[in-house]
Amino acid sequence: MIIIMNNDVTDEQIARVVDRLKGMGAGVNVSRGVERTVIGALGDESKIDKEALDALPGVEDVIRVMKPYKIVARSYHSADTVIDIKGVKLGGKQIQVISGPCSVETQAQMDQSAAAVAAAGCRLMRGGAFKPRTSPYAFQGAGVEGLEMFRKAADRHNLPIVTELMDVRQVEAFQEYDVDVIQIGTRNMQNFDLLKEVGRMRKPVILKRGMSATISEWLMAAEYIAAGGNHNIIFCERGIRTFETAYRNVLDVTAIPVLKKETHLPVIVDPSHAGGKAWMVPALSRAAIAAGADGLLVEAHPLPCEAWCDADQALSPEELAELMGSLRAVAQAIGRDL
Amino acid sequence: MIIIMNNDVTDEQIARVVDRLKGMGAGVNVSRGVERTVIGALGDESKIDKEALDALPGVEDVIRVMKPYKIVARSYHSADTVIDIKGVKLGGKQIQVISGPCSVETQAQMDQSAAAVAAAGCRLMRGGAFKPRTSPYAFQGAGVEGLEMFRKAADRHNLPIVTELMDVRQVEAFQEYDVDVIQIGTRNMQNFDLLKEVGRMRKPVILKRGMSATISEWLMAAEYIAAGGNHNIIFCERGIRTFETAYRNVLDVTAIPVLKKETHLPVIVDPSHAGGKAWMVPALSRAAIAAGADGLLVEAHPLPCEAWCDADQALSPEELAELMGSLRAVAQAIGRDL
Amino acid sequence: MIIIMNNDVTDEQIARVVDRLKGMGAGVNVSRGVERTVIGALGDESKIDKEALDALPGVEDVIRVMKPYKIVARSYHSADTVIDIKGVKLGGKQIQVISGPCSVETQAQMDQSAAAVAAAGCRLMRGGAFKPRTSPYAFQGAGVEGLEMFRKAADRHNLPIVTELMDVRQVEAFQEYDVDVIQIGTRNMQNFDLLKEVGRMRKPVILKRGMSATISEWLMAAEYIAAGGNHNIIFCERGIRTFETAYRNVLDVTAIPVLKKETHLPVIVDPSHAGGKAWMVPALSRAAIAAGADGLLVEAHPLPCEAWCDADQALSPEELAELMGSLRAVAQAIGRDL
Amino acid sequence: MIIIMNNDVTDEQIARVVDRLKGMGAGVNVSRGVERTVIGALGDESKIDKEALDALPGVEDVIRVMKPYKIVARSYHSADTVIDIKGVKLGGKQIQVISGPCSVETQAQMDQSAAAVAAAGCRLMRGGAFKPRTSPYAFQGAGVEGLEMFRKAADRHNLPIVTELMDVRQVEAFQEYDVDVIQIGTRNMQNFDLLKEVGRMRKPVILKRGMSATISEWLMAAEYIAAGGNHNIIFCERGIRTFETAYRNVLDVTAIPVLKKETHLPVIVDPSHAGGKAWMVPALSRAAIAAGADGLLVEAHPLPCEAWCDADQALSPEELAELMGSLRAVAQAIGRDL
Repeated sequence: MIIIMNNDVTDEQIARVVDRLKGMGAGVNVSRGVERTVIGALGDESKIDKEALDALPGVEDVIRVMKPYKIVARSYHSADTVIDIKGVKLGGKQIQVISGPCSVETQAQMDQSAAAVAAAGCRLMRGGAFKPRTSPYAFQGAGVEGLEMFRKAADRHNLPIVTELMDVRQVEAFQEYDVDVIQIGTRNMQNFDLLKEVGRMRKPVILKRGMSATISEWLMAAEYIAAGGNHNIIFCERGIRTFETAYRNVLDVTAIPVLKKETHLPVIVDPSHAGGKAWMVPALSRAAIAAGADGLLVEAHPLPCEAWCDADQALSPEELAELMGSLRAVAQAIGRDL
Repeated sequence: MIIIMNNDVTDEQIARVVDRLKGMGAGVNVSRGVERTVIGALGDESKIDKEALDALPGVEDVIRVMKPYKIVARSYHSADTVIDIKGVKLGGKQIQVISGPCSVETQAQMDQSAAAVAAAGCRLMRGGAFKPRTSPYAFQGAGVEGLEMFRKAADRHNLPIVTELMDVRQVEAFQEYDVDVIQIGTRNMQNFDLLKEVGRMRKPVILKRGMSATISEWLMAAEYIAAGGNHNIIFCERGIRTFETAYRNVLDVTAIPVLKKETHLPVIVDPSHAGGKAWMVPALSRAAIAAGADGLLVEAHPLPCEAWCDADQALSPEELAELMGSLRAVAQAIGRDL
Repeated sequence: MIIIMNNDVTDEQIARVVDRLKGMGAGVNVSRGVERTVIGALGDESKIDKEALDALPGVEDVIRVMKPYKIVARSYHSADTVIDIKGVKLGGKQIQVISGPCSVETQAQMDQSAAAVAAAGCRLMRGGAFKPRTSPYAFQGAGVEGLEMFRKAADRHNLPIVTELMDVRQVEAFQEYDVDVIQIGTRNMQNFDLLKEVGRMRKPVILKRGMSATISEWLMAAEYIAAGGNHNIIFCERGIRTFETAYRNVLDVTAIPVLKKETHLPVIVDPSHAGGKAWMVPALSRAAIAAGADGLLVEAHPLPCEAWCDADQALSPEELAELMGSLRAVAQAIGRDL
Repeated sequence: MIIIMNNDVTDEQIARVVDRLKGMGAGVNVSRGVERTVIGALGDESKIDKEALDALPGVEDVIRVMKPYKIVARSYHSADTVIDIKGVKLGGKQIQVISGPCSVETQAQMDQSAAAVAAAGCRLMRGGAFKPRTSPYAFQGAGVEGLEMFRKAADRHNLPIVTELMDVRQVEAFQEYDVDVIQIGTRNMQNFDLLKEVGRMRKPVILKRGMSATISEWLMAAEYIAAGGNHNIIFCERGIRTFETAYRNVLDVTAIPVLKKETHLPVIVDPSHAGGKAWMVPALSRAAIAAGADGLLVEAHPLPCEAWCDADQALSPEELAELMGSLRAVAQAIGRDL
């Protein structure tokens, strides 16, 4: 940690910072420049309370030298982590496209969806049984019955299932239906009690980025899961909130190479929620793969116009199949498979 | 709802939209301009699925004419709602300053805090027993023991207590210690299951604005609570996330008059988390009161530099007392009391 | 234009809006719903003053039905515009990578740069003679002498030159050195007098997106140039400003397909300024091409560590050559050349 | 400057950074911690090229210790600067409300405006002759004739005039009509050539904050003016761009105390452009004064609904007079006059 003092700092104030640092167990290095005094705190930064230093008189700024995350950092584990989902590998050379409807509606809709997902060549299926909706008056998801319909439809095609967990009280149902990949949604990225709960589970977790979460906060949210013992974490970029109103969110492709540098864990992208319109999905999907994403989460529906939720962003079965072909070419251009 | 069609729309596409609208029970008004055809859907907008219309061919844009929130809207209840917290009125002529430490640490710290809060003339006390922390390795709050210490300290001064609920499993403890006002934190503003849970409770709820929540999303989050039957909701603006890095968040004072126009419910402001530095608190507090806020949530600590959490943003007892004096003058200037 | 009235609107207020619209020459269609009255204004929207309507009593919202831009809109000219820069085609099947240093420093540096740019297979060269710098104390560019050095170096390799125009008083020098493509920088996207000036010139203009410009504002800025008679406009996405601090800007890839839909003009991307670090450039470049960009603006320097400006974002000649190879593969995967 | 090295840095890389720093004339202090090596560069930071250091191998981050601005910094001049505008003092105990229409339309409109501004008790008048409009097809201002009408109307009431300069070619006209205060608009905050030009002039300059400018960039823009010799600079906060769409911009009140701490120059606020609606102006104006602003820039028009520009944000003469009374009370509550 580096402590930058005000330009009119007194010796007494410097001494107080030094004392405080020593009390926290840190080594101290005081460097008095012509204009500024800078104090370096040596040792384990997690033991040093940044805010307490910030509050001391004469302190202008306190800067971390070390990253606050550990288990999820690439410096902790230098090789790429490849997550095995019932034999499907995510994070390796092969790119995975996880597809399916926004929400589970009926058994017929799920059966058709599963057939279309499998036919397009996808190896994993998504679908929401518990739905986070902005309005309390909107369809809130089919719930536990939805999990049952989903499991049944997906099993027929040997597709592992991915679905969102919104509340700790749903954990039991997730275990009963043996959900293969647990999704933590955007609005729950910093629902710390939920993160601790999935940290105790052993299924892979897709951690969606909060709508305005920084890369650092996102890594720290993953650290909550990892600290509980579950290291099977997949980051999912889904667009961030900005001033732009021409599309729902701004897909942050820069996050892909930056995360691949900072963490050993896989990174996927949700182009459907990012753009918010089906016609934007192909361009965004290609961009994500070209930037190095390990996979995609793409909404598709047997009859998009009839979908009960996010109808305008779902691909039809034909569009999904066509997209897969186009993505295969991009994957090969960068030396990967799909 | 108004549906704007593409400039090359076909009669068939228009007919399909009209059919779909009629199927949703809406009256229809087609207006063919020189350059654009616009379709008006008459009737209860909550019955019309905007996304399904967005997904139809030929549709360029679908625009709501009605507000999606109901119970919390001023059009539902035109007079200001005044919430009674054990005899302390929030939302009326008298402005309430809720003060106390970021987190409950020890009984002695809470006793000193309560004494300082009461001495400064505040009528409500805040303090966190369950703490949402960015890092899993940081102090996570004193938990249920914290509630006990808080209750004991506050009761000595007849101060109703305000504390944050992070998880549905903490509800029982909140009931046991009879927490007077439940705070829903920034990161949980769209934790819909938690909102539904406090909607079933009968205690007033402070709903903090999500870090990048729009006014509309915030009102809809309150609607989740109200739809459950609990109409005692207090909005708390606490700064939004922007590009600016010179301070933690940008206090959005414009939200105050806008909310007062849109809703009948009280609006308070948290200047401590907004600025992130104790020295900014007086200016931001005065601005909030001058803009029409019904109250403030101000962090104070008997020994700010020793605080276990957010040490750099807590006021000392002396600073709190001084702030109260300065706020009283501003309150009187705009015809209110403090 | 659609005017949505308040829910407690009076007949008098409606009549005043109708009168005002007729005074502006618009046809009027009043639709009285159960909860809302909506007034449609028919006719040429550019003749209707939105703000004046917004100011009338009883008006809640005024919504445009038509796009405010004309010449730059795809509805004005449906085929892609291909811009010819001394024989190099931008906007067609072939993707153009424009490369060169951030700023013109010396003749030797420009000669080496030009050689490297040509050797890598790029067909256009960039370099700044007039530099917009955040600090008045930083190197402000080599000025007119810089144009001379640039021209000389580029001519040896038949590379058309691209350079930034910052002030109307530099126009003469640009004409003297026959600058092939004029760049309007981010900070000048809404410098309307400068836009009008390049609207009178006949050279192609690269219009960089303002740091927080919406797609609509950007199109309107281009409309300023087009309205002056110069239709040779190239949009350049260069990252937008958001809350994220892990990288300089957030490259907005969604802007690429959205612009290609809204306008017939070419769209290129500047991955160097977007990410701000050389190691991010390859991933961002590939993403941009995969998303449909017609070209790139990539910083390269013979000795990046010695560059006088933005040293940390320039590619070395070797890195540039390698990037070109990788981009060629991606271009082919989506059916284009490079 | 502090240079933080990667955790796998080599001795050779450290040596190269040290050499480079010495070459820039800096003293060097290398501190090898257990996990990180940190290099301190001592001496005049403006001589050290941050980007060149960022580009060196092994460097993870480079952090400034000193502020990049000088003349505008409070450390350069500790007392508040009070600017004298023909006898009206801005930046002292007395708060100044500068009012008038968005744009100069006719002589009659300006005469009525001036009378209303003076009658309300304002001591300075604003009005735009050259208008930055998003659309090339919108009214672009009355130009030089506008300056003449403005001068004539204001002189009758001894009101110094404030008007926007958009282009260096307008300087002559500004001198001819002896404009008392030159306004640099939001879109030109980083039009560096224009800043240099007003730096050479001797009239006070109101520098509006760029729509997404950081405090630091804003101070640096002022430094451009100051470096040219003109130290009569007034900062004007006018709302920043965020994700919120319920109002035009978010008025950043936190900027007021932060600027007052960082600079000795006056700070005013434009509540009209911030909110974008006349009904929001009183609340925002009171908040600005309460937060410590030295003045306001408020739009008023004899007949708001007939204004040629921004009709929905102008106050009527009656509303302006009423606002002045309410602001006087707030000013007195914080120990100032109006």
